[in-house]
Amino acid sequence: MTTTAEDLSLTFAALADPTRRAILQRLALGDATVNELAEPFALTQQAISKHLKVLERAGLISRSRAAQSRPCQLETGRLDSAADWISRHRRLWEERYDRLDEHLAALRRPVERGTSDEEGT
Amino acid sequence: MTTTAEDLSLTFAALADPTRRAILQRLALGDATVNELAEPFALTQQAISKHLKVLERAGLISRSRAAQSRPCQLETGRLDSAADWISRHRRLWEERYDRLDEHLAALRRPVERGTSDEEGT
Repeated sequence: MTTTAEDLSLTFAALADPTRRAILQRLALGDATVNELAEPFALTQQAISKHLKVLERAGLISRSRAAQSRPCQLETGRLDSAADWISRHRRLWEERYDRLDEHLAALRRPVERGTSDEEGT
Repeated sequence: MTTTAEDLSLTFAALADPTRRAILQRLALGDATVNELAEPFALTQQAISKHLKVLERAGLISRSRAAQSRPCQLETGRLDSAADWISRHRRLWEERYDRLDEHLAALRRPVERGTSDEEGT
Protein backbone atom coordinates (compact mmCIF):
# COMPACT_ATOMS: atom_id res chain seq x y z
CA MET A 1 0.00 0.00 0.00
CA THR A 2 1.50 3.34 -1.07
CA THR A 3 1.10 6.45 1.03
CA THR A 4 0.00 9.47 -1.00
CA ALA A 5 0.80 13.11 -0.15
CA GLU A 6 -2.82 13.42 0.99
CA ASP A 7 -2.42 10.40 3.34
CA LEU A 8 0.74 11.92 4.78
CA SER A 9 -1.03 15.25 5.39
CA LEU A 10 -3.88 13.46 7.19
CA THR A 11 -1.40 11.52 9.33
CA PHE A 12 0.59 14.58 10.38
CA ALA A 13 -2.63 16.56 11.03
CA ALA A 14 -3.93 13.72 13.22
CA LEU A 15 -0.65 13.71 15.18
CA ALA A 16 -0.90 17.49 15.76
CA ASP A 17 -3.21 17.12 18.78
CA PRO A 18 -2.04 16.13 22.29
CA THR A 19 -5.22 14.14 23.10
CA ARG A 20 -4.92 12.14 19.88
CA ARG A 21 -1.24 11.46 20.61
CA ALA A 22 -2.21 10.29 24.12
CA ILE A 23 -4.82 7.96 22.59
CA LEU A 24 -2.18 6.46 20.26
CA GLN A 25 0.19 6.12 23.23
CA ARG A 26 -2.50 4.17 25.11
CA LEU A 27 -3.20 1.97 22.07
CA ALA A 28 0.52 1.22 21.66
CA LEU A 29 0.20 -0.69 24.94
CA GLY A 30 -2.86 -2.64 23.85
CA ASP A 31 -6.26 -2.43 22.14
CA ALA A 32 -8.94 -0.46 24.01
CA THR A 33 -12.62 0.40 23.79
CA VAL A 34 -13.95 3.98 23.61
CA ASN A 35 -14.91 3.70 27.31
CA GLU A 36 -11.39 2.64 28.27
CA LEU A 37 -9.89 5.43 26.16
CA ALA A 38 -12.21 8.11 27.60
CA GLU A 39 -11.44 7.17 31.25
CA PRO A 40 -8.05 8.91 31.77
CA PHE A 41 -9.24 12.11 30.02
CA ALA A 42 -11.66 14.72 31.30
CA LEU A 43 -13.54 14.28 28.03
CA THR A 44 -16.93 12.97 27.04
CA GLN A 45 -17.25 9.77 25.03
CA GLN A 46 -18.52 11.96 22.21
CA ALA A 47 -15.31 14.06 22.20
CA ILE A 48 -13.19 10.89 22.23
CA SER A 49 -15.26 9.45 19.37
CA LYS A 50 -14.54 12.58 17.33
CA HIS A 51 -10.78 12.14 17.88
CA LEU A 52 -11.04 8.44 16.99
CA LYS A 53 -12.73 9.35 13.69
CA VAL A 54 -9.79 11.66 12.82
CA LEU A 55 -7.30 8.90 13.72
CA GLU A 56 -9.26 6.30 11.74
CA ARG A 57 -9.50 8.57 8.67
CA ALA A 58 -5.72 9.12 8.92
CA GLY A 59 -5.22 5.32 8.91
CA LEU A 60 -3.53 5.46 12.34
CA ILE A 61 -6.09 3.19 14.01
CA SER A 62 -8.63 0.61 12.97
CA ARG A 63 -11.78 -0.45 14.81
CA SER A 64 -13.20 -3.93 15.08
CA ARG A 65 -16.65 -4.30 13.49
CA ALA A 66 -17.20 -7.62 15.24
CA ALA A 67 -17.62 -6.80 18.93
CA GLN A 68 -20.32 -4.51 20.32
CA SER A 69 -17.62 -2.46 22.08
CA ARG A 70 -15.65 -2.06 18.79
CA PRO A 71 -12.15 -2.00 20.35
CA CYS A 72 -9.56 0.29 18.69
CA GLN A 73 -6.21 -0.95 17.46
CA LEU A 74 -3.09 1.01 16.51
CA GLU A 75 -2.10 0.70 12.84
CA THR A 76 1.63 1.21 12.41
CA GLY A 77 1.86 1.55 8.61
CA ARG A 78 1.06 5.26 8.54
CA LEU A 79 3.30 5.97 11.54
CA ASP A 80 6.10 4.33 9.54
CA SER A 81 5.32 6.45 6.48
CA ALA A 82 5.45 9.62 8.59
CA ALA A 83 8.75 8.57 10.21
CA ASP A 84 10.13 7.65 6.77
CA TRP A 85 9.32 11.08 5.38
CA ILE A 86 11.16 12.75 8.27
CA SER A 87 14.21 10.48 8.15
CA ARG A 88 14.51 10.80 4.37
CA HIS A 89 14.75 14.59 4.61
CA ARG A 90 16.95 14.40 7.66
CA ARG A 91 19.35 12.27 5.57
CA LEU A 92 19.31 14.72 2.63
CA TRP A 93 20.29 17.43 5.09
CA GLU A 94 23.13 15.37 6.56
CA GLU A 95 24.39 14.43 3.10
CA ARG A 96 24.49 18.11 2.28
CA TYR A 97 26.80 18.70 5.25
CA ASP A 98 28.89 15.65 4.38
CA ARG A 99 29.38 17.10 0.89
CA LEU A 100 30.28 20.46 2.44
CA ASP A 101 32.80 18.74 4.75
CA GLU A 102 34.34 16.90 1.78
CA HIS A 103 34.51 20.15 -0.15
CA LEU A 104 36.20 21.95 2.75
CA ALA A 105 38.60 19.03 3.23
CA ALA A 106 39.48 19.19 -0.48
CA LEU A 107 40.08 22.94 -0.18
CA ARG A 108 42.27 22.45 2.90
CA ARG A 109 44.43 19.69 1.44
CA PRO A 110 46.71 21.78 -0.84
CA VAL A 111 47.14 24.36 1.95
CA GLU A 112 48.23 21.66 4.41
CA ARG A 113 50.62 20.25 1.82
CA GLY A 114 51.90 23.75 1.24
CA THR A 115 52.50 24.21 4.98
CA SER A 116 54.41 20.93 5.36
CA ASP A 117 56.51 21.84 2.27
CA GLU A 118 57.44 25.08 3.98
CA GLU A 119 58.34 23.15 7.14
CA GLY A 120 60.51 20.84 5.01
CA THR A 121 62.65 23.69 3.68
CA MET B 1 16.25 22.43 24.58
CA THR B 2 13.21 20.34 25.57
CA THR B 3 10.29 19.91 23.22
CA THR B 4 6.92 20.49 24.89
CA ALA B 5 3.63 18.86 23.87
CA GLU B 6 2.68 22.23 22.38
CA ASP B 7 5.92 22.32 20.31
CA LEU B 8 5.23 18.82 19.05
CA SER B 9 1.68 19.79 18.05
CA LEU B 10 2.99 22.82 16.11
CA THR B 11 5.61 20.65 14.36
CA PHE B 12 3.12 17.97 13.27
CA ALA B 13 0.59 20.66 12.19
CA ALA B 14 3.30 22.36 10.10
CA LEU B 15 4.17 19.01 8.46
CA ALA B 16 0.49 18.42 7.59
CA ASP B 17 0.64 20.52 4.41
CA PRO B 18 2.18 19.32 1.10
CA THR B 19 3.53 22.77 0.15
CA ARG B 20 5.24 23.16 3.53
CA ARG B 21 6.73 19.66 3.19
CA ALA B 22 7.99 20.59 -0.31
CA ILE B 23 9.59 23.75 1.15
CA LEU B 24 11.37 21.65 3.81
CA GLN B 25 12.46 19.19 1.11
CA ARG B 26 13.97 22.10 -0.88
CA LEU B 27 15.70 23.47 2.25
CA ALA B 28 17.15 20.04 3.06
CA LEU B 29 19.24 20.50 -0.11
CA GLY B 30 20.41 23.99 0.84
CA ASP B 31 19.37 27.38 2.20
CA ALA B 32 17.07 29.43 -0.03
CA THR B 33 15.44 32.86 -0.21
CA VAL B 34 11.67 33.42 -0.43
CA ASN B 35 12.09 34.12 -4.17
CA GLU B 36 13.93 30.85 -4.72
CA LEU B 37 11.33 28.95 -2.69
CA ALA B 38 8.38 30.54 -4.53
CA GLU B 39 9.78 29.71 -8.01
CA PRO B 40 8.82 26.00 -8.34
CA PHE B 41 5.31 26.61 -6.95
CA ALA B 42 2.37 28.31 -8.64
CA LEU B 43 2.12 30.48 -5.53
CA THR B 44 2.59 34.15 -4.76
CA GLN B 45 5.48 35.28 -2.57
CA GLN B 46 2.82 36.25 -0.03
CA ALA B 47 1.44 32.70 0.12
CA ILE B 48 4.97 31.31 0.51
CA SER B 49 5.68 33.84 3.27
CA LYS B 50 2.60 32.61 5.13
CA HIS B 51 3.86 29.01 4.95
CA LEU B 52 7.32 30.14 6.09
CA LYS B 53 5.78 31.81 9.14
CA VAL B 54 4.06 28.53 10.11
CA LEU B 55 7.35 26.63 9.64
CA GLU B 56 9.30 29.24 11.63
CA ARG B 57 6.75 29.21 14.47
CA ALA B 58 7.02 25.41 14.56
CA GLY B 59 10.81 25.70 14.88
CA LEU B 60 11.35 23.78 11.63
CA ILE B 61 13.18 26.63 9.89
CA SER B 62 15.08 29.74 10.87
CA ARG B 63 15.63 32.90 8.82
CA SER B 64 18.75 34.98 8.68
CA ARG B 65 18.28 38.54 9.97
CA ALA B 66 21.56 39.64 8.41
CA ALA B 67 20.99 39.62 4.65
CA GLN B 68 18.31 41.66 2.87
CA SER B 69 17.03 38.45 1.22
CA ARG B 70 16.77 36.70 4.64
CA PRO B 71 17.57 33.16 3.42
CA CYS B 72 15.73 30.29 5.14
CA GLN B 73 17.50 27.37 6.76
CA LEU B 74 16.16 23.98 7.85
CA GLU B 75 16.32 23.36 11.61
CA THR B 76 16.54 19.67 12.35
CA GLY B 77 15.91 19.65 16.13
CA ARG B 78 12.13 19.65 15.83
CA LEU B 79 12.18 17.10 13.02
CA ASP B 80 14.17 14.86 15.36
CA SER B 81 11.66 15.38 18.19
CA ALA B 82 8.79 14.44 15.87
CA ALA B 83 10.65 11.34 14.64
CA ASP B 84 11.50 10.44 18.26
CA TRP B 85 7.87 10.60 19.29
CA ILE B 86 6.88 8.24 16.48
CA SER B 87 9.71 5.74 17.03
CA ARG B 88 9.11 5.66 20.81
CA HIS B 89 5.48 4.60 20.31
CA ARG B 90 6.40 2.27 17.49
CA ARG B 91 8.77 0.55 19.94
CA LEU B 92 6.11 0.27 22.69
CA TRP B 93 3.89 -1.44 20.12
CA GLU B 94 6.64 -3.86 19.08
CA GLU B 95 7.51 -4.65 22.70
CA ARG B 96 3.86 -5.48 23.25
CA TYR B 97 4.05 -8.07 20.47
CA ASP B 98 7.39 -9.39 21.77
CA ARG B 99 5.75 -9.94 25.18
CA LEU B 100 2.83 -11.69 23.47
CA ASP B 101 5.27 -13.93 21.54
CA GLU B 102 7.12 -14.80 24.77
CA HIS B 103 3.82 -15.57 26.45
CA LEU B 104 2.75 -17.84 23.58
CA ALA B 105 6.17 -19.55 23.56
CA ALA B 106 5.86 -20.18 27.32
CA LEU B 107 2.41 -21.67 26.76
CA ARG B 108 3.70 -23.90 23.95
CA ARG B 109 6.76 -25.24 25.81
CA PRO B 110 5.07 -27.93 28.05
CA VAL B 111 3.08 -29.23 25.08
CA GLU B 112 6.26 -29.64 22.97
CA ARG B 113 8.03 -31.43 25.86
CA GLY B 114 5.00 -33.69 26.19
CA THR B 115 5.18 -34.59 22.50
CA SER B 116 8.91 -35.42 22.56
CA ASP B 117 8.39 -37.60 25.70
CA GLU B 118 5.80 -39.58 23.80
CA GLU B 119 8.22 -40.00 20.90
CA GLY B 120 10.84 -41.32 23.36
CA THR B 121 8.65 -44.17 24.58
